[in-house]
Amino acid sequence: MDNRPIGVFDSGLGGLSCVKEIMSIMPGEDVIYFGDTGRVPYGSRSQETLMKYVRQDIRFLRSFDIKMIIIACGTASSAVLPWIGDELDTKIMGVVQPASKKAVESTKNGRIGILGTAATVKYGKYVEDIKKLNPDAQVFQKACPMFVPLVENGYMDSEVTEIIAREYLEEIRKKDVDTLILGCTHYPILKDVIQKIMGDEILLIDSGATAAHSAYEFLKSTGMLNDKTTGEYKYFVSDSTEDFAKLGSMFLSKPICEDVGKIDIERY
Amino acid sequence: MDNRPIGVFDSGLGGLSCVKEIMSIMPGEDVIYFGDTGRVPYGSRSQETLMKYVRQDIRFLRSFDIKMIIIACGTASSAVLPWIGDELDTKIMGVVQPASKKAVESTKNGRIGILGTAATVKYGKYVEDIKKLNPDAQVFQKACPMFVPLVENGYMDSEVTEIIAREYLEEIRKKDVDTLILGCTHYPILKDVIQKIMGDEILLIDSGATAAHSAYEFLKSTGMLNDKTTGEYKYFVSDSTEDFAKLGSMFLSKPICEDVGKIDIERY
Repeated sequence: MDNRPIGVFDSGLGGLSCVKEIMSIMPGEDVIYFGDTGRVPYGSRSQETLMKYVRQDIRFLRSFDIKMIIIACGTASSAVLPWIGDELDTKIMGVVQPASKKAVESTKNGRIGILGTAATVKYGKYVEDIKKLNPDAQVFQKACPMFVPLVENGYMDSEVTEIIAREYLEEIRKKDVDTLILGCTHYPILKDVIQKIMGDEILLIDSGATAAHSAYEFLKSTGMLNDKTTGEYKYFVSDSTEDFAKLGSMFLSKPICEDVGKIDIERY
Repeated sequence: MDNRPIGVFDSGLGGLSCVKEIMSIMPGEDVIYFGDTGRVPYGSRSQETLMKYVRQDIRFLRSFDIKMIIIACGTASSAVLPWIGDELDTKIMGVVQPASKKAVESTKNGRIGILGTAATVKYGKYVEDIKKLNPDAQVFQKACPMFVPLVENGYMDSEVTEIIAREYLEEIRKKDVDTLILGCTHYPILKDVIQKIMGDEILLIDSGATAAHSAYEFLKSTGMLNDKTTGEYKYFVSDSTEDFAKLGSMFLSKPICEDVGKIDIERY
C-alpha cells in the first residue's frame, strides 16, 4: 500500500483523458496534475525544446512526494522516453508503450493506424514499439497538427472539425487498418467524429486511458495501490487558470471544482 | 543617417508581414527578425507571461546594435506598450497605435472594426487608441483565436478557413463598419478571404505594414534612414528552423534564402 499521489502531466488539457480513467478505475488514488498551458502546443516543438520542457515538468511533479509519474502526452512520451529510465528513480510511464501493446493485442489483420502530432509522427516511437512486439505488423502514421488547436479552442463537434478530420483520415482509411491509436491525449475528445469517419468496426485506442490501465496494473502488482475510497485531485497550470476548469470539465465529463494553481514552470 | 539595423519581433511568422513592407518602402534598411516560434501562440497567454516574453524578446534584439525595435505582434503590442516608453532608451514601436491612427483617418462613417487574438481583444488597446483620437468613433472588436493556428499550419486558402472566418465575421458584418483593422500580424495572409466575406468596399488595415510606414516616417523625420540601396536580413527563431523559411516565404512573397538562426530565448 502506498498512499502517495500519482503525478500526471501534459502540454495542456489532453492529459485529463488519462485522469478521467484514473478516476474511474482507481477512484481512491490522489492525483497531482500539471498542464503546461503556458507552453502548449508541444507537437510543433523540436526535440531539444521538448527535452527541456519535460525535464522541468518532471522536476515540478517531483517537488511533491509522489509514487509515480504518467507522461499523459503523446508528443512528450515520444520525444523523451529513451533517457527517462536511466535518469530518475521515480517510476515514469508514457502513453506510447501501453497503447502500442494494446493495439498489437487487439488487431486481427495486423494493420494498425496511428494519429499523432507532427513531432510524434516524426519520432515514430509508436511504430518502433509496435514493431518490437510484432515485427510483421503493418503500421501507418498520420500527423494531425490542427486537432490540438481545435480542441483547445472548443471546436469539438463542428463542421470544421469534421472537414479537417476527413482530410487527415483519408489516407489511413485506404490502408484497411482495423485498429487506430489516438496517439495524442487530446484526440479522445474527438472520438465521435473520428469513429464516424473511420466506421464503427474500427477499434480506436485512447492512449491516455490505456496508460491509466497500465499504471493500475503496475501499482497493483507492486502493492502500491492507495487504500482510500475517494481520491483528491490537485491541478496546476503554467498560464492563466481561467479557462482550464471550464474546458477541462469537458475532458473529465464532470466539473473541476478544485482551485487550479498557477506555477512558473521555468523555475524548475 | 544611421546604418544600424531595425529589430523586428513577433510570436512567430506574422511579423514578416511588417518586414515585407520594410523591404518594399525602405529597401536599404538592414533588419534583424526574431520569431518566438518556441512559445507561439502569444494570443492565449496571460499578461504576466506576455510581459516576461516581450522583455526577453527585446533583450535579445538589444544584444545587437540596433536603432529601433518594431513589436510586429498585435498581442505583444497590446499587452506591454504601457510600460515600454519609460523603461528603455531604444525607440520602440508597436502595431496598435499606427493602425488605430490610420483607421481614424480613413473611416468615413466613424465605424471601425478590429480583429485580433483573444488577448488583444481583452486588453482593448486598439479601442483605447481609437477613442483617444476620435471619442465619437464606434468600435467593434472580435477575437479570432483559430486564425493563428490556421496560418501557422498552412490553411491559407481553404474551405475550413472560410467557414471559420464567416463565423468570426458574422457579428462585425452587421455593425456597418467601413474600416477593419487586421489587428494581428498573421491576419494579412488571410486578407483575400476576409475581403471576400466583408465585401470589396470595406477598407482592411494591415497592422504590420502600417507599422512599417510609421517606422519610415520616424526614421525619415529624425534623419536616421539607412543610406544603402540593398538591406541585409537576419532571421532568428526560438525553436526548430526547418519550417520557418518555407512558411515565411509565403508571408514575404519571396524566398528566404538566408540561414535562419536558432536561439535559447529563456537565456535573455
